[in-house]
Amino acid sequence: MITPIAVSILASYTLRFTQLDREISAQSGESLFQSARRHGVRIVGACGGRGTCGTCVVHVAEGSVERVDAGFDATAEDAFSGKKWVRACQVRPCGDCRIEVAPRSLAVVVRAEIDTGADDERLPLDPTISNHDLVLAEATLADPLSDADRLRQAIGVPVLAFDLAAARRLPGLLHEQSRALRARLRYGEVIDVATSGRHALGLAVDLGTTNVAGFLVDLESGVRLAGLGIENPQAAWGADLISRINYAIGGAVPANELREAALEAINALAHDLCYAIGATRHDIVDVSVCGNTAMHHLLLGLPVRQLGRAPFVAAIREGIDAKARDLGLAVNPGAWIHIAPSIGGFVGGDHVSALLATESRWSEGRTSLVMDIGTNTEISLIHAGILRSVSSPSGPALEGGHISCGMRAAEGAIERVTLAADGALAVRTIGNCEPVGLCGSGVLDALATLHRSGVIDVRGRIAEHHPVVVQHQGKRAVQLAPGVLLTQHDVRAVQLAKAAIRTAVDMLLVEAGLDTWQIDRIIIAGSFGAYIDIESGIEIGLFPDLPRERYDQVGNAAGVGVRMLLISGAARQRARELAASSRYIELSSRSGFQKRFLHNIGFPVPPTSSRTLK
Amino acid sequence: MITPIAVSILASYTLRFTQLDREISAQSGESLFQSARRHGVRIVGACGGRGTCGTCVVHVAEGSVERVDAGFDATAEDAFSGKKWVRACQVRPCGDCRIEVAPRSLAVVVRAEIDTGADDERLPLDPTISNHDLVLAEATLADPLSDADRLRQAIGVPVLAFDLAAARRLPGLLHEQSRALRARLRYGEVIDVATSGRHALGLAVDLGTTNVAGFLVDLESGVRLAGLGIENPQAAWGADLISRINYAIGGAVPANELREAALEAINALAHDLCYAIGATRHDIVDVSVCGNTAMHHLLLGLPVRQLGRAPFVAAIREGIDAKARDLGLAVNPGAWIHIAPSIGGFVGGDHVSALLATESRWSEGRTSLVMDIGTNTEISLIHAGILRSVSSPSGPALEGGHISCGMRAAEGAIERVTLAADGALAVRTIGNCEPVGLCGSGVLDALATLHRSGVIDVRGRIAEHHPVVVQHQGKRAVQLAPGVLLTQHDVRAVQLAKAAIRTAVDMLLVEAGLDTWQIDRIIIAGSFGAYIDIESGIEIGLFPDLPRERYDQVGNAAGVGVRMLLISGAARQRARELAASSRYIELSSRSGFQKRFLHNIGFPVPPTSSRTLK
Repeated sequence: MITPIAVSILASYTLRFTQLDREISAQSGESLFQSARRHGVRIVGACGGRGTCGTCVVHVAEGSVERVDAGFDATAEDAFSGKKWVRACQVRPCGDCRIEVAPRSLAVVVRAEIDTGADDERLPLDPTISNHDLVLAEATLADPLSDADRLRQAIGVPVLAFDLAAARRLPGLLHEQSRALRARLRYGEVIDVATSGRHALGLAVDLGTTNVAGFLVDLESGVRLAGLGIENPQAAWGADLISRINYAIGGAVPANELREAALEAINALAHDLCYAIGATRHDIVDVSVCGNTAMHHLLLGLPVRQLGRAPFVAAIREGIDAKARDLGLAVNPGAWIHIAPSIGGFVGGDHVSALLATESRWSEGRTSLVMDIGTNTEISLIHAGILRSVSSPSGPALEGGHISCGMRAAEGAIERVTLAADGALAVRTIGNCEPVGLCGSGVLDALATLHRSGVIDVRGRIAEHHPVVVQHQGKRAVQLAPGVLLTQHDVRAVQLAKAAIRTAVDMLLVEAGLDTWQIDRIIIAGSFGAYIDIESGIEIGLFPDLPRERYDQVGNAAGVGVRMLLISGAARQRARELAASSRYIELSSRSGFQKRFLHNIGFPVPPTSSRTLK
Repeated sequence: MITPIAVSILASYTLRFTQLDREISAQSGESLFQSARRHGVRIVGACGGRGTCGTCVVHVAEGSVERVDAGFDATAEDAFSGKKWVRACQVRPCGDCRIEVAPRSLAVVVRAEIDTGADDERLPLDPTISNHDLVLAEATLADPLSDADRLRQAIGVPVLAFDLAAARRLPGLLHEQSRALRARLRYGEVIDVATSGRHALGLAVDLGTTNVAGFLVDLESGVRLAGLGIENPQAAWGADLISRINYAIGGAVPANELREAALEAINALAHDLCYAIGATRHDIVDVSVCGNTAMHHLLLGLPVRQLGRAPFVAAIREGIDAKARDLGLAVNPGAWIHIAPSIGGFVGGDHVSALLATESRWSEGRTSLVMDIGTNTEISLIHAGILRSVSSPSGPALEGGHISCGMRAAEGAIERVTLAADGALAVRTIGNCEPVGLCGSGVLDALATLHRSGVIDVRGRIAEHHPVVVQHQGKRAVQLAPGVLLTQHDVRAVQLAKAAIRTAVDMLLVEAGLDTWQIDRIIIAGSFGAYIDIESGIEIGLFPDLPRERYDQVGNAAGVGVRMLLISGAARQRARELAASSRYIELSSRSGFQKRFLHNIGFPVPPTSSRTLK
């Protein structure tokens, strides 16, 4: 008999990262860096793989690679192996490889969190999962109850349901463990059976458009065990949401690749975080995720077409509780995932989480603004017990994106710019290295400084004659350092971004019938927001001109909020209430929006000398 | 760049059954019949593929096949194609084929049901799923609620959860249907959104060891639309449960193949039943399944090792509600599956379903026995408000299995045997055809007749000298027809089977402190039980010698019960109560069992002439 052979063409190699205990498949043509990022392997890459920063250094321990610029006519001579260190973004595999990541290129686990005032130790614990160490009676012919029945008898609390995965493990575990085991219940459902005493872990994920942050938490104490941030692998389909939504709409299988990329990121975080503390993904018995509405939809496989066009309607806004395995998460098979509720099409669960985490700061009857500045900026105004929320498509400029020399807040990024009266320009960089680019806070600071000095006028035009002004491709630009320019186009991009945010604030105040000075507190959330110089922000008109002490920079509040959701049923209930009670305002539907936006594009009249240079 | 090629060896061909709109993959070496059965393609095959009945006729419309007995040295000459009609069990594919099933070999959809007294029209309806035809408000910029919110507003009953699959369909459907749709709720969860007015269908499945019966039901009226029975494809791993359990235990991936075979059967039924009435599997929004405890465990992927050895403990006995997609069912992605609860390791949900369906017959305070005779026979005794259940490993002999000339109740099967005083033996066959074998009811009737005539003595020995007795392979046998023998070994097999069942009844009576005559009613459930001649059963000692009118043959009560579970939440609750309240008795743990069993192996003293031959 002849055995038939089916030939399938799979353009794919296997890359093993032994240090990280990870094995991924590389698509042909992709650089090592791209493959690693797509699969959430945590290689540092400050420039995002453009070959400019040199931070993604690896050693190809086994297998061979070729230079990415070798092109299609690459010969065997171009391939090389065994060489010392190469940049992951500059090579692609020619076959299966074993890769070692340079210690300095390995993104660190357990990153320092920016203090939000809400220390993890103090996050309120109201566990949704209870753990029960049990010793079960032995089954006999005279009393042949089922294994589940004997667990039910021993546990002493009502068992309403049995997860199938837990039921599948139960008989084997009983046999191995001499009838001793730990059962975990979630709202009356047995979701897991484990060896006695085995701690229950939870994974909280802030699924951002650009970065995905994960936190591993001991569900029994509420203590954070490890944290890790990686790039969102969806970036392969566009840096901004609209590109991704358009991709998802155009796809034959809508949103599926984007869904899988988001999943891949969460699964990679789960793996790496567990690996870092010597646990396994099976120990993760609960997961919480927050993200903007588009991330929420893409992760859940919900259609996004209607999100991308007026009236920007979400398929679903409420919080979702689903079996993690149903979404494809590689954690304990009985685990649930809780996804934070959204407020509207462009005010998502990340903002709800930020509101939750900062509630103690705004809930004392004060009129407060909570702003989460990013590519999309969400703003809530809390006044007289009413929560109003808007979203502003501020774009990536404030974070250094779409800026000609923009870069992430990494070593060599200019973060502070000063200009002496004599025209001498000085910069400070992260890590005090040679300046290689401009990060978001640097862009803001540069603009404030240049505007204050008159290099940029109230309409945003760069002055024709000034020592720091150069001609670049026929247009004016400010030379901040050798090779680092701020172009007229960059200035325009920042103007549009700050006008979008400021107009959103103004519209909220109009809606509530308030004047600017009536705002008691402005809470700036988000990792980027933590680095902004508030004075600079006020100077360029991004923020209202209010006393500095009314501002409160709280860092990644969404990350704190999603951890609260993970460890507390009460927090989930509160998030539900916040999301349901908030009045979502679609800015483009409001009269006066366009006029005010145009007004806000310019810079305020240069401030008096009352302000001091920092 | 070189595209790498991965070669995988898949010994598999595709078989297309165009009449049935089915496409399956055939494993190499398998006959067409085996492949069809494994995938639940409904070809009639009375002899089970042994090549003796000629009922599995097909035409190979495209592709070529070879004879199964051609062996490994088959040459091209052995392969043939385009020939007229072949028996599916005698050929195997040499490549992809398109197969046409002879009309008479196509198992019929909508089989006549054996009357159980509980007509389908009268099955109590208490729907778990409600249907709501809605017209949703239009989303506007001023009121951009989510699609789910607008559904919630329109539906007027509390919505507690949204199935993800339903949420995924909602935006597209709203757009296509001008905001009109039908939402389906199950206990407050939106499980499906469909076009307005689209009827909700349900699938009820009686997952038997040998046969799988499926019923398609209109969930809104409770009316049965179609019914179909196919062979359980698990038969490929053994006709009896113990063989399958042993296979599952020995397998590298325990029970997985068996789980997939069970799934395949249910999916095939769903497909064929929907195809028959012009619906699609997507219309099936609820599923109920009953089966014995081993079937229940194998379908759910639960370990079965502990079921196969003392004290025969089930992993879980309670009814299971799970998302059908979580088990791999190809029905509406939001559908749930309800699996009937079990009573014990060998008294399963099929018996609970039978108890549910026959409750009106035993619930009037009468002392009743409910028996479901099969390879495993489950018996419940209801007396003084107490329900006691036992299981008896009666084996397949009573159904014609493991009997040398045994066969299914199909054309040519001897079903009635008479012996005149002059020793002239006469048989009646199903369909009045040439006798080709002996079905279960025929075996019983033959034994009763032969015992009554003295051909078989009280200990079961075949008489040495009698016109109907022949020597077969050195042992005595009764020749019932040319080529159809009942051997001494066959008689022993039936003796063991009937002793097992009768002993179980006796032990139940002892347990309840009753005498045989105190039984008011004996309800014989099961398709096989419907064909048994009660007099014959009493004569050989299978049944207690009680007046004929106390017996009640109700047919496939489990099939009726599982339809009740499908259309009624109250029935699910009642099944739960029945299963939980029943006292399961493990016979082997009871003293006196062995002695009584040995006693029951013999036949009763020949009855007096008071009994008449039928």
